[in-house]
Amino acid sequence: MKTFALIAVCAAVIGLVVALILAMRIKNSDQGTDRMKEISGFIREGAFAFLKREYKIMAIVIIVLALLIGIGLQSVTTAILYVFGAVLSVLAGFFGMNVATWGNVRTAAAAKESGMNKALQIAFHSGAVMGLAVSGLGLFGLGIVACCLDLATVVQCVTGFGFGASSMALFGRVGGGIYTKAADVGADLVGKVEAGIPEDDPRNPAVIADNVGDNVGDVAGMGSDLYESYCGSIISAITLAAVASAASGGLFDEATAAFFPLIMAAVGIISSIIGIMMVRGKEGSNPANALNMGTYIASGVVVIVSIILSKAMLGSFAFAVAIIAGLVVGVAIGKITEIYTSGDYKSVKKIAEQSQTGAATTIISGLGVGMMSTVWPIICIAVGIFAAYFATETVGTGMGMYGIALAAVGMLSTTGMTVAVDAYGPVSDNAGGIAEMAELPHEVREITDKLDAVGNTTAAIGKGFAIGSAALTALALFASYSAVTGLSAISLLNPIVIIGLFIGAMLPFMFSAFTMNSVGRAANQMIEEVRRQFRSDEGILAGTVKPDYAHCVDISTQAALKEMIVPGLMAIIAPLAVGIILGPEALGGMLAGALAAGVLMALMMANAGGAWDNAKKFVEEGHYGGKGSETHKATVVGDTVGDPFKDTSGPSINILIKLMTIVSVVFAPLFVAIGGLIG
Amino acid sequence: MKTFALIAVCAAVIGLVVALILAMRIKNSDQGTDRMKEISGFIREGAFAFLKREYKIMAIVIIVLALLIGIGLQSVTTAILYVFGAVLSVLAGFFGMNVATWGNVRTAAAAKESGMNKALQIAFHSGAVMGLAVSGLGLFGLGIVACCLDLATVVQCVTGFGFGASSMALFGRVGGGIYTKAADVGADLVGKVEAGIPEDDPRNPAVIADNVGDNVGDVAGMGSDLYESYCGSIISAITLAAVASAASGGLFDEATAAFFPLIMAAVGIISSIIGIMMVRGKEGSNPANALNMGTYIASGVVVIVSIILSKAMLGSFAFAVAIIAGLVVGVAIGKITEIYTSGDYKSVKKIAEQSQTGAATTIISGLGVGMMSTVWPIICIAVGIFAAYFATETVGTGMGMYGIALAAVGMLSTTGMTVAVDAYGPVSDNAGGIAEMAELPHEVREITDKLDAVGNTTAAIGKGFAIGSAALTALALFASYSAVTGLSAISLLNPIVIIGLFIGAMLPFMFSAFTMNSVGRAANQMIEEVRRQFRSDEGILAGTVKPDYAHCVDISTQAALKEMIVPGLMAIIAPLAVGIILGPEALGGMLAGALAAGVLMALMMANAGGAWDNAKKFVEEGHYGGKGSETHKATVVGDTVGDPFKDTSGPSINILIKLMTIVSVVFAPLFVAIGGLIG
Repeated sequence: MKTFALIAVCAAVIGLVVALILAMRIKNSDQGTDRMKEISGFIREGAFAFLKREYKIMAIVIIVLALLIGIGLQSVTTAILYVFGAVLSVLAGFFGMNVATWGNVRTAAAAKESGMNKALQIAFHSGAVMGLAVSGLGLFGLGIVACCLDLATVVQCVTGFGFGASSMALFGRVGGGIYTKAADVGADLVGKVEAGIPEDDPRNPAVIADNVGDNVGDVAGMGSDLYESYCGSIISAITLAAVASAASGGLFDEATAAFFPLIMAAVGIISSIIGIMMVRGKEGSNPANALNMGTYIASGVVVIVSIILSKAMLGSFAFAVAIIAGLVVGVAIGKITEIYTSGDYKSVKKIAEQSQTGAATTIISGLGVGMMSTVWPIICIAVGIFAAYFATETVGTGMGMYGIALAAVGMLSTTGMTVAVDAYGPVSDNAGGIAEMAELPHEVREITDKLDAVGNTTAAIGKGFAIGSAALTALALFASYSAVTGLSAISLLNPIVIIGLFIGAMLPFMFSAFTMNSVGRAANQMIEEVRRQFRSDEGILAGTVKPDYAHCVDISTQAALKEMIVPGLMAIIAPLAVGIILGPEALGGMLAGALAAGVLMALMMANAGGAWDNAKKFVEEGHYGGKGSETHKATVVGDTVGDPFKDTSGPSINILIKLMTIVSVVFAPLFVAIGGLIG
Repeated sequence: MKTFALIAVCAAVIGLVVALILAMRIKNSDQGTDRMKEISGFIREGAFAFLKREYKIMAIVIIVLALLIGIGLQSVTTAILYVFGAVLSVLAGFFGMNVATWGNVRTAAAAKESGMNKALQIAFHSGAVMGLAVSGLGLFGLGIVACCLDLATVVQCVTGFGFGASSMALFGRVGGGIYTKAADVGADLVGKVEAGIPEDDPRNPAVIADNVGDNVGDVAGMGSDLYESYCGSIISAITLAAVASAASGGLFDEATAAFFPLIMAAVGIISSIIGIMMVRGKEGSNPANALNMGTYIASGVVVIVSIILSKAMLGSFAFAVAIIAGLVVGVAIGKITEIYTSGDYKSVKKIAEQSQTGAATTIISGLGVGMMSTVWPIICIAVGIFAAYFATETVGTGMGMYGIALAAVGMLSTTGMTVAVDAYGPVSDNAGGIAEMAELPHEVREITDKLDAVGNTTAAIGKGFAIGSAALTALALFASYSAVTGLSAISLLNPIVIIGLFIGAMLPFMFSAFTMNSVGRAANQMIEEVRRQFRSDEGILAGTVKPDYAHCVDISTQAALKEMIVPGLMAIIAPLAVGIILGPEALGGMLAGALAAGVLMALMMANAGGAWDNAKKFVEEGHYGGKGSETHKATVVGDTVGDPFKDTSGPSINILIKLMTIVSVVFAPLFVAIGGLIG
């Protein structure tokens, strides 16, 4: 049976080798002019300065939590796996961001020297490195765990690995999200609105911080989010393997059920590599087509292989149905997200139209779009759960929860490809920034703008995907929670469960309030600093004196690190407190409440933010008065509100629901032992 | 046992007689100048034109739903009770609004002739009529039902009465909410912002529609909301009486358990009358003190009597604990709401401060306050549920759910007083409008402004109370649902329940999107009409030509009636569809999801809206540049976004969750019989 684990490790290594080759190729590409090198140097420097300080804090968190696990659960193995999962998460972020900061300047250089095709390739391959690092390191870690430990220990302790991934993801996502939006809002409000200078203008002191933010938030933060979902889905399937094999009536044993998700993940990595290779821009065509093609090919390969392996390994096609259900839901949510957030469809146009009566109607209609945009994704998730559950339940009663975990595995199997497409956006965005700051010819910026426009849509789709996958992963982990606690029912007719449900539903609201206020505070500091610099030396706006970029970078860094602590602790303490005080059933209610309300809030915030962003772009294209009109100003307000919505609070909720669930799974034995102090 | 029902009917009649006396006194007060009479005539005319057309649509709804109940459930009694509950709801709205439109002009006249004290009294007594009509007619109806039918029939069919109350409430709240905000937003954006004329200026064509809106939305709509909660809480306790008496081990019989909530409601009416009588303004003192005093006295009486009756009727003090828990939670939520929405506290000041950097930061910080404001109310509700459940559960296992229903009854027992305080606000607001339009001396407006300012706070508190009571009532009805369906558990480990949970959590978002978009569309129509009138005749703005008020009233009326249909149907169809297709367990999940997410959304929206409103007022008082400054403009954007939040979407969610639950209770036998087409 260890063969399966070895296969998974091999596939992971292949993925990592491909990532390494791509990274080296990118590194050896042309870096452009000295000015470009200098600017990209600033960005790299800022990004790594942040990461380094973030890692220092995380190191403390890792040590404290490892001790907590070791002592609270008296399991050294779980504590070690926790550290292992956390360290791999850090590595994935580090590796991916490193290449992204190589890729940005080289994308700009390629756009300058060789045109669209080459630029698309470098930007996309930078994203692909991140994607393969995320899935490769995730599968590598889990494969090694499966190789080295006996099955019983794996099942018992592997959740520690997931907890490691989750806790790092939270700080990465929240810290990165606050960083990027503080810089973005600050740069926009003073630079674009007050001083009237264009985006990415080198005279803006916050411009480097803004570009750093794209890397630490949209690349590293997003990567750690999907790394967590990726690991979480596989881990959940592993912990449910015993239940599944018992329900199968001898069709397959526990080991096969536990290793099947690893094998599917291995298939996913290979499929992603194939998909990545297939992405080739054609001069004059829309880069979105090339990216979509790659995604469809990767998904197609997984579909075909899952049908074969489902029958071969587990003796029934039902498991392929679950995997395919997950994949289809992921793609469908992406498409729905596009419809609600892209300027090609009526929702965004409607917001732009409503902006003619001022910022208030921009906000009202944008929130309306955000709320409405939750309907179809929820229906998709519901149908996906239904299909995955009932298909596998036909194999044997009690099998359905394993089916739901497989749906999550299926959805996330092509994570390598999905992250590649997603991370391509901020790399292109950065390339555009560098082109602007280095004063490259107008045609270069046109190319990067085209890449960036596609990147905005792929980023919105990626967010939808991240939410959908978080929902399924959290649900799968919720099933693991019930298995670990041995609860036969968590009934809504039990008032303690209802109390948990209310508290759980409240947490995403509280969490969002924290993160939004954090962005507000940090952005205010940034605004004041930029204003101060403009006031202190008129040469800055005249373009004769270089602004003090480093100070703005420092403000974002400090604010992000400081502000990520409270929401981070909250996500860990809330399930511990409810589990210990009110008991495991109330905690089950809390997790369900947080899951339901959190997914809704995340969808609403991400999509409203995306729609506002593109409504502004739609007006900038010349509709309803174009740039500088009153309508445009109204859409800028919408975009600014949307910034923390879509890049800080919304995505952070994903992690909140996953992290709280995995904390509950890890500490479930403790809660069961205590049984609730008052519950 | 019928004695208890007779006592309830008598108390209800006393309440109605007092209401009648107050109404006659108000009617006989001075109406002021001819101009005032003319203006108030316009408002009355507009309000009744709306009600008349609304009632026509409701008549169709009543007939259709009565038939549906009669045929679908084959119960003529339930259908008849449905009609009875609906007709009484309509009567309460009609009676209350009638007096409110008498009271507004007389409040202005009293302010002009006799000063603050007399004005406060008339405004408050107008509200008191609404309050006593709501509780009096509610208890009268339920008392009559209890008198005329045998207990088994009452328990089986009384939910029909609640359904009647709920279905009317939905259309009243949604229709009224859309009406008032379409007029308000339209009047503000064109009048105040574009034309620069003051609020309530007679030159504004939408000004009458705006004042009509206060009556149909904030008086009639709010009244029907609390009428529904009031009836729902009592009904829920009645349906759980059999369970409670079985659990009591012979301590009391079913009839006593069923009649106890009626008796407590009777106590509440008498207490409210006492409280109302105690409200007397002192010249020079803050009217808020007088109102608070009345509320505390009414609550105090209920507390004392509940302790006595709990022991005397049910043989244990535990039931008083439940009732008092409900009362305390209601008062606490009101206080918390005040802290987050009043300009005296730091949240609102923070929004005003943040508004200095523009409308975007106004919106971000307001949403942050709204989200944060959910935390303590949820904790209060959780503690209240906990106390009510576990106190009564000690009497006998299985008693707890009855305890939760009693908590709801306790919270709502002083509805007469609560509605009086709440409805006093819009009456004062209208009085100010009439003073402005009739060009009364400045001192008059100062008095009405003072009353109105207090009214804004009481309105915000009232909203918090309405949400809290909706949460408890819906939860109590959810317990009834489980009793009627006979489900022993609705387990979150059953994926069909999770699917229900997701769908349920999504519904408040979808519903809010509908209602916000409705307001947006209707407001746009209004904006265009006001602009058209200003353009078509320059005499309007010059003040020499009277604008066409009627046309604006007509636009609001038509828009409200048209736009209330879809969300209204949605609330009825969603539980029917889920119950029939996915079965009763999935429906249980859906109700819980809608309850949790709905309460959170309602709190967030109501409080964000209230906070924005008062942040604007805070700036208008001269802070951060005062009226006309850029900061002020930013707060106006916040206030405009807050309008549909706090007066349309937020409050409508209350009804959504109650209505969906009662639909489920009424049609539960049908769902059980079908058992889910695919679930």
